Amino acid sequence: MTAGQQPPTARGLSRRHLLLGGAAAGIGAAGAIGIDLAGRAGATSLSPAVDVPLNGTQIVPFYGIHQAGIETTPQGHATLVALNLRADVDREALRRMMRILTDDAARLTRGEGALADSEPELAVTPARLTITFGFGPGLVSRAGGQAPGWLRPLPAFGIDRLDPAWTGGDLLLQVAADDPVTIAHATRMLLKDLRSFATVHWVQTGFRRAPGSEKPGTTMRNLFGQVDGTVNAGPGTHDFEQLVWATGENPGWLTGGTGFVLRRVSMDLDKWDQLDRSGRESAVGRTLANGAPLTGTNERDEPDFAATTPLGFPVIPEYSHLRRARSENPAERIVRRGYNYDDVRVGEGISNSGLLFVSFQADVDRQFVPIQQRLDTLDLLNEWITPIGSAVFAIPPGCSPGGYIGDTLF
Amino acid sequence: MTAGQQPPTARGLSRRHLLLGGAAAGIGAAGAIGIDLAGRAGATSLSPAVDVPLNGTQIVPFYGIHQAGIETTPQGHATLVALNLRADVDREALRRMMRILTDDAARLTRGEGALADSEPELAVTPARLTITFGFGPGLVSRAGGQAPGWLRPLPAFGIDRLDPAWTGGDLLLQVAADDPVTIAHATRMLLKDLRSFATVHWVQTGFRRAPGSEKPGTTMRNLFGQVDGTVNAGPGTHDFEQLVWATGENPGWLTGGTGFVLRRVSMDLDKWDQLDRSGRESAVGRTLANGAPLTGTNERDEPDFAATTPLGFPVIPEYSHLRRARSENPAERIVRRGYNYDDVRVGEGISNSGLLFVSFQADVDRQFVPIQQRLDTLDLLNEWITPIGSAVFAIPPGCSPGGYIGDTLF
Ligand code: HEM
Ligand code: HEM
Repeated sequence: MTAGQQPPTARGLSRRHLLLGGAAAGIGAAGAIGIDLAGRAGATSLSPAVDVPLNGTQIVPFYGIHQAGIETTPQGHATLVALNLRADVDREALRRMMRILTDDAARLTRGEGALADSEPELAVTPARLTITFGFGPGLVSRAGGQAPGWLRPLPAFGIDRLDPAWTGGDLLLQVAADDPVTIAHATRMLLKDLRSFATVHWVQTGFRRAPGSEKPGTTMRNLFGQVDGTVNAGPGTHDFEQLVWATGENPGWLTGGTGFVLRRVSMDLDKWDQLDRSGRESAVGRTLANGAPLTGTNERDEPDFAATTPLGFPVIPEYSHLRRARSENPAERIVRRGYNYDDVRVGEGISNSGLLFVSFQADVDRQFVPIQQRLDTLDLLNEWITPIGSAVFAIPPGCSPGGYIGDTLF
Repeated sequence: MTAGQQPPTARGLSRRHLLLGGAAAGIGAAGAIGIDLAGRAGATSLSPAVDVPLNGTQIVPFYGIHQAGIETTPQGHATLVALNLRADVDREALRRMMRILTDDAARLTRGEGALADSEPELAVTPARLTITFGFGPGLVSRAGGQAPGWLRPLPAFGIDRLDPAWTGGDLLLQVAADDPVTIAHATRMLLKDLRSFATVHWVQTGFRRAPGSEKPGTTMRNLFGQVDGTVNAGPGTHDFEQLVWATGENPGWLTGGTGFVLRRVSMDLDKWDQLDRSGRESAVGRTLANGAPLTGTNERDEPDFAATTPLGFPVIPEYSHLRRARSENPAERIVRRGYNYDDVRVGEGISNSGLLFVSFQADVDRQFVPIQQRLDTLDLLNEWITPIGSAVFAIPPGCSPGGYIGDTLF
């Protein structure tokens, strides 16, 4: 099961429940049709019993053991913001800051205005909004807390061409939803809360296919056209729990939290386009058509690394991304939850695109770093991709109503 | 009827037709449920008879008397690109250029790869993709054609703070769809076609609520939270036809085409937030809650400009945007089809937002300019909004298969 297959949590009834409920109650097809037609015609007052929930009304619960936005089936859009704390922000101020942010995040994700919402009418469409907070090394030390050993900039890699403007930060906001207006409004409300505490260091905006564009559970494609995210532990699986949620090996305040890595990886589409299909497929070790390993026919077939061509070469090349990214050690795995980016470019260049590569893992040093190291040493994909930004954050656990994100730290 | 109410053209069956069809064929609720469950579980092979069409499969026809993307119910996303022609591009090259662009636009909007598509797998989700071409004054003169009198930069307005980086251009691409991946791919394919003909002058990206977020027909809200687009002739109405499509008064090649105005209008959200609700409502003359005129209760109530407060002041102030934007002359009207923008901002400022104000009108000088002139003279909204970019394009008519966009000009 991949991240794409987790059913979204919906306020009220989903269309499926509605239809099921209608059948159970003996309403039958005509009832269902009536409802559907009313919804499509844009009727303004439907009785609650037959209200067709719109995508926009779907709610992902904010409170819980873990923060939302990690197990959540990836939404169509995400805005990642990193902020730097102002010089005078101390532990007490951090506590105040996180209380305010938590309170507003809880409201906004429910489809309510923020406490001092200046445009409350824009808040009524939660569209599976999740707001996930992460703490950089600077914030944890300002709080006087114990940082996990891995909470620091990643080691320098040979392939890196990092731009400081896309690197680091004290506080992370991951604001994701199926609706870009919802994200714009929620981000603004949070940034208003943060004005006296921090300044914006970077903002990165990413997208996947819109909700309803494709069958639920379809693995996303990146802008190279590759199926991207096939081998990825899905929410609710034992693997996911093991790989993602921090346990006793991390400082106690992080239990139920996780580690967050962002790599802003530019993808040279122009150079990629010069490569033929078979070259592209060997670079990854999977087909472009459906993402099957070059030794298989379906996306989820197990790759056969021993298979060779008639000339004796491995079918899945040694230098392929698939081979290099996979470890023999099952603990060296991560959960990826990235987004495409496609930013403005003018003049002669026509591509400013790439991947906001995001991964979650309980221990960045043990899980993420070895993979990135292997890819740094050898990965044919490096011909076309370049990491240009990098950041690591500790994602504290979730909280209960009355608590606040970070309350285990402060 | 507003632009939001036009039913999208769908490939195959819409969900509504499916349910209706199911009922007509006596399949009943259980059949409908089975289909819906299968769709949600991400099943990969449904028989064609019970295939539930996804948003992503919806197609807006490319060929026709008029170009698509004007009458089309606004999609969730739009990318507007202006290009400048290279010095050596002559009439013959323009003809070649428009043939290539037309051919690829027709393919892409059908959900097929471009002729030399480098990532054909990204093309299979048209999601109501429309690609609309516009010609700037430079292109029409390069073609040796007769330009309509209004095809030139707008007169300078006192409120303008135009940045040349957002102003003008020889060729316009309006690429709009309900899916941002579709737009990214289509835009790239067109820009690749254009490489030898032109360079990119600006790219502006905008959004509305995602498809399915709200009931169809809901008027969009801008980032001030205002209901924006209430008084706007809807596609298929007599008003729309009269206001939008160019007729004999324009040069013959433009018949069936129209005029396009873009105003990039920045909206100072921070300053707006300092204003209380009643101040905001008088600035426009409508309520924030549902966009009703201050003299009415429902969005579409006619404003009563004669109504006065107990103190004798007009309820809808003289300086309000509603009053100033409305002309006594019914010919001085336009059809608006704009998008929100919310761009990256770092450091102390936290708002870089506004409206990609787009309007269509058969004659820019007679229809658009008087409105903008009145708003320039007096409009309370000017306290919070500033035009920072501006462009005018002639949108040639549509074409038939075998023809190409602009074939009436070249
Ligand atoms: C633009 C940059 C990148 C692109 C285009 C890319 C693309 C892909 C593709 C197409 C696959 C195969 C399908 C799948 O299982 O998802 C894949 C797998 C994978 N990638 Fe990447 N990737 C990128 C960066 C990275 C980075 C930075 C890392 C981690 C350091 C990484 C780690 C992995 C892992 C762990 C897998 C699964 C390997 C397995 O089958 O066990 N990728 N990637
Ligand atoms: C950021 C800039 C702008 C904002 C926030 C804005 C907002 C609004 C709002 C809230 C309405 C009332 C609801 C409606 O009927 O749509 C409206 C109406 C209108 N606006 Fe604007 N507007 C902007 C710029 C412009 C510009 C540049 C023009 C044309 C030069 C324009 C022309 C109109 C027209 C013609 C109407 C309809 C008036 C009527 O009721 O007859 N607006 N606008």
